[in-house]
Amino acid sequence: MRVTPSPSRPCALDEVPSWDLEADVVVVGFGAAGASAAIEAAEAGAKVLIIEVASGHGGTSAMAGGDIYLGGGGGTPAQTENGFSDSTEDFYRYMKMAGGPDADEERVRLYAEGALAHFDWLERQGVPYRRTYIPGKPVMPGTGDCLILSGSEEAWPFSEEAEPCPRGHLPDATGETGGFVLLESLATRVRSLGVDVLFDARGQALIVDAARRVCGLVVMIDGETRYVRASGGVILCAGGFVLNRTMLEQYAPQISRLADDALSGGYDDGSGIRMGQSVGGAAIHMNEMFTTLPFYPPESHIKGILVNDRGARFINEDAYPGRIATYILDQVGDRFFLLVDDAIFEQPSELSRISIAAVGETWEEVERELELVEGTLVSTVKIHNLHAEKGEDPLFHKHRKWLKPLDEPPFAALACHLGEAFYPYFTLGGLRVRPTGEVLTSDGDPVPGLYAAGRTACGLPRWGAGYSSGMSLGDCTFFGRMAGRQAATHEPSENGD
Amino acid sequence: MRVTPSPSRPCALDEVPSWDLEADVVVVGFGAAGASAAIEAAEAGAKVLIIEVASGHGGTSAMAGGDIYLGGGGGTPAQTENGFSDSTEDFYRYMKMAGGPDADEERVRLYAEGALAHFDWLERQGVPYRRTYIPGKPVMPGTGDCLILSGSEEAWPFSEEAEPCPRGHLPDATGETGGFVLLESLATRVRSLGVDVLFDARGQALIVDAARRVCGLVVMIDGETRYVRASGGVILCAGGFVLNRTMLEQYAPQISRLADDALSGGYDDGSGIRMGQSVGGAAIHMNEMFTTLPFYPPESHIKGILVNDRGARFINEDAYPGRIATYILDQVGDRFFLLVDDAIFEQPSELSRISIAAVGETWEEVERELELVEGTLVSTVKIHNLHAEKGEDPLFHKHRKWLKPLDEPPFAALACHLGEAFYPYFTLGGLRVRPTGEVLTSDGDPVPGLYAAGRTACGLPRWGAGYSSGMSLGDCTFFGRMAGRQAATHEPSENGD
Repeated sequence: MRVTPSPSRPCALDEVPSWDLEADVVVVGFGAAGASAAIEAAEAGAKVLIIEVASGHGGTSAMAGGDIYLGGGGGTPAQTENGFSDSTEDFYRYMKMAGGPDADEERVRLYAEGALAHFDWLERQGVPYRRTYIPGKPVMPGTGDCLILSGSEEAWPFSEEAEPCPRGHLPDATGETGGFVLLESLATRVRSLGVDVLFDARGQALIVDAARRVCGLVVMIDGETRYVRASGGVILCAGGFVLNRTMLEQYAPQISRLADDALSGGYDDGSGIRMGQSVGGAAIHMNEMFTTLPFYPPESHIKGILVNDRGARFINEDAYPGRIATYILDQVGDRFFLLVDDAIFEQPSELSRISIAAVGETWEEVERELELVEGTLVSTVKIHNLHAEKGEDPLFHKHRKWLKPLDEPPFAALACHLGEAFYPYFTLGGLRVRPTGEVLTSDGDPVPGLYAAGRTACGLPRWGAGYSSGMSLGDCTFFGRMAGRQAATHEPSENGD
Repeated sequence: MRVTPSPSRPCALDEVPSWDLEADVVVVGFGAAGASAAIEAAEAGAKVLIIEVASGHGGTSAMAGGDIYLGGGGGTPAQTENGFSDSTEDFYRYMKMAGGPDADEERVRLYAEGALAHFDWLERQGVPYRRTYIPGKPVMPGTGDCLILSGSEEAWPFSEEAEPCPRGHLPDATGETGGFVLLESLATRVRSLGVDVLFDARGQALIVDAARRVCGLVVMIDGETRYVRASGGVILCAGGFVLNRTMLEQYAPQISRLADDALSGGYDDGSGIRMGQSVGGAAIHMNEMFTTLPFYPPESHIKGILVNDRGARFINEDAYPGRIATYILDQVGDRFFLLVDDAIFEQPSELSRISIAAVGETWEEVERELELVEGTLVSTVKIHNLHAEKGEDPLFHKHRKWLKPLDEPPFAALACHLGEAFYPYFTLGGLRVRPTGEVLTSDGDPVPGLYAAGRTACGLPRWGAGYSSGMSLGDCTFFGRMAGRQAATHEPSENGD
């Protein structure tokens, strides 16, 4: 029985009637990872073909703010020109902690030691950086300035682990077009290197030879099946699985608690991951996701305290909002309240979809209005205020600069409910890969001829509670490049695993 | 380049020099799932061969208490003879909630409707049941009695969802030999059916033909490679991955917080799951695990309250201890305290490795001795007592029969710390399968010729917070049987997915 090839059913070489197209390296997906892979493979002398399902380049990367997390080595030009020095060890320790209990040390080390050169590379590809710095905690400033504090650097427990330093690097772009500008530069470079690109072309299935080496790709174009030979290998850069309802249910069911705010360019259907699995690649950390809650600006709201449906606090509110949102998803119940007093209250941003749930002259009144169990919210605020007055937060270790007793009435509870407020999200799980992009089985053996990068792989960002803005695009571009170089060699890497 | 076959690298049919052994159905693993599969396949007329890595039958199943979770249809003989009636719908609703946000409804429905007949089948295989009932919350009674309340039936939120009923069915066995007795009966039946068994034989890799159908198994015996033909299919019943350090780190890193108390017969190395992945089978729920904390007996301790390292309560303490331990792993920090007063205190069991952390005449004294943040533990106890006096627990919904103000000094905090107390554990993630055992890819297509059951598959128990004692062996035996029947037909099932 012959079956139609699909992402989860590879095509055997002897089922290929003839090759319609040939290249050394075939890259699936023209987002940040795919573009970076194509550039490096082409520069290494390979004939490269990009297969892109959309009608243009960019993918989900182009929708992002364009932030790239970089530092170490004394500092990037943007860091040093603003008076920041950043040691490779601090950068490494921060990134390692951000990777969670299963951080990929080899990958983190390569990134920490290579980030400075990577910034130069980005500039050489034509990505514009103004090298200016915005202090405070800006979220998507959209001013064209470069350097921002984009993670939990100054927040516990990261601040105990590594000297804080701003490491988010934004392209010179206005509004929220940073990702677009980044991808325009990379795509222009891809074209100038003579890389072929097929748009409106869907990677349908991998082609494997008798020795189980990946040697090509079945592609659907205008409803027609095309067979593309890849003598050096296939690099899967097809994004994550945030739009695949079945995969979400089976791998990350907690996502069903969020409103429909998936971050995607429209094609994160998990087909890259599924193609890797079809030939024995292991998919890891599939339950991990990025989500966030833009509860500031206004920055004053960081001085508020977040409580769950039982009136209990659960995290330091000065952590990166992505870490906070991950903790929110770990709580039972879908109601969350940001408690503020008159001194710090401002209208929440429209974007956040945070509304006012209750207002009162006393916290007892607010507690009653929210129908919380008697004594819960009141004692949470009381314990917080008791310590905040001394500039301390022994429970959650919020930095003293964000500590303030909530004692100036009227008081308000702002609703940050799951399923209601804006919690954008994307997936962090993906194929297990070496830093070279070589896809690995569960035994740690490479699948010959197969590479992955970006959110099709499980890379640097693999733990929702450790995410900082700029980590995913940093991973996409840095390790996309490595995968491109590796695939161009046609040889397995030396590193064991 | 020819590579050595391994669990993650299948062997191509044309690499098989000759067949050393042949069978219709090859079963990998002789625990509860493998035995049940072999019995049904043999009864359907198939020539069956079991490959077992250990020197005898039993696997991890034989180490368990032997509890099987059964009910519905008005009640099993053990239920009705003790005055319990149990509707299929209540049983279904309980099992569905226990399966969590991604419960497999089709599987739950089949199980709820087939459990009564399954009890008969177990008795027909010779498993001895005394049909007696032990009231209360016994844990591993070891008396040979049959029926126990083995889950969260009477606890919120399950009690809101389904009428509580005891559904744990233990074989007539003394001490902790229930699993052993169960497996002895099944193994005797396997032998009487003329099933061939190879012990000390390791399933090394699947053999696939050019159409990617699984048609055999590479087996290592005494260091020699043997090729086993399976014309009807291979059923993987090789257990979970709780002994595979690399897989634990990548799939369930939270396990590193526990002491070395893995529940395993010695061979849960994930090789079954890895073999399935090697031919495109998807492994799902790999982050989910079962763990528990035997903080009772003494039953009086259920009236205590559990707090985390921040002095906060987080669950109703009358839930199944496996649910409680899962919630414990969701908390930040590794210190946990069971708070008791003089009226309910008894010495914790030696098994539990729970020790006395602090004693005081007031809760303030206990709070200080534990070095908890001032006011935290005290306000937790105060809020609990305030409501417990009225027989209420509005925060966590503990049943009133377990509610008691903790107001009789001296007071004590019992240390239930992660990494210190006894939290036995095993893995719940595994291959995605139809109820028939057919292994599915991420796209939901069956991998021809491949089946899985028991903890190699992701079955009924797939959510740590929903586990009840007896669910895993219930799943192993019930769906092991279905896989055996299906494989014996040599045909794919009709059900879509």
